[in-house]
Amino acid sequence: MRIVTGAEADESAAREANAAFYAAFRQGDLEAMDALWARDEPVLCAHPGGGTIHGRIAVIASWHSLFTHGPPPIDHSDDRVTIIRGMAFVSCVEHIADRRLGATNVFVWEQGRWRLVLHSAGLLSQDDESIDPGSTSGLLH
Amino acid sequence: MRIVTGAEADESAAREANAAFYAAFRQGDLEAMDALWARDEPVLCAHPGGGTIHGRIAVIASWHSLFTHGPPPIDHSDDRVTIIRGMAFVSCVEHIADRRLGATNVFVWEQGRWRLVLHSAGLLSQDDESIDPGSTSGLLH
Repeated sequence: MRIVTGAEADESAAREANAAFYAAFRQGDLEAMDALWARDEPVLCAHPGGGTIHGRIAVIASWHSLFTHGPPPIDHSDDRVTIIRGMAFVSCVEHIADRRLGATNVFVWEQGRWRLVLHSAGLLSQDDESIDPGSTSGLLH
Repeated sequence: MRIVTGAEADESAAREANAAFYAAFRQGDLEAMDALWARDEPVLCAHPGGGTIHGRIAVIASWHSLFTHGPPPIDHSDDRVTIIRGMAFVSCVEHIADRRLGATNVFVWEQGRWRLVLHSAGLLSQDDESIDPGSTSGLLH
């Protein structure tokens, strides 16, 4: 029998919450998306290319607007969970058609589940993932 | 006499830590940059266009590499501090020449100062900051 520690259980649940986020995203399921965001904490959301949106009402409205236009066929990979002071920082790569984006999703444990306080995503350079400000890959820093 | 509460003091100190981060960035000051990152917590860093970098050694190495190429003339504005479960989430707009980037910097209170656990930045669309996946502004979601 394998012992699952609390930390492992947290990480596994955070991975599931991240997958649930992308499922709601892909399906344009506003109710599921709403349920995934924290209610007792302030929340922030930075869609790619857009400024940071503050506050639950504005964040959920942004998802509503996005879903109204038709949610993108988004998928995710490379999920990595880092627990910092009891919060789950999940980094992953988002895939929309042939574009890749880097994302960070931060969850707090609230009412028995992981709930989002931050979603932040930005387009990844096409040619590589290295940091080389001298390259022509479009990295600014 | 104005009473400054703990929360206000935290926010003010987080704003100062964020300014110190951009000062170290602009000046290419690796020692100051190193001192700004947490030592007792895991850290993550997503430079624009690049994948997420995990771990203190790799993150500091990325700043070393970036500074070796010459730090960009970066400035910041629109700083907004949100305290979530004792951590400071600072969103701001970065300015490098005529480009604007959206950034989220997350700090933990460690050894009497705010220290970074996450820096994440991505290019903002040139034409507006709205979220409109139907627009031609390059937003993917």
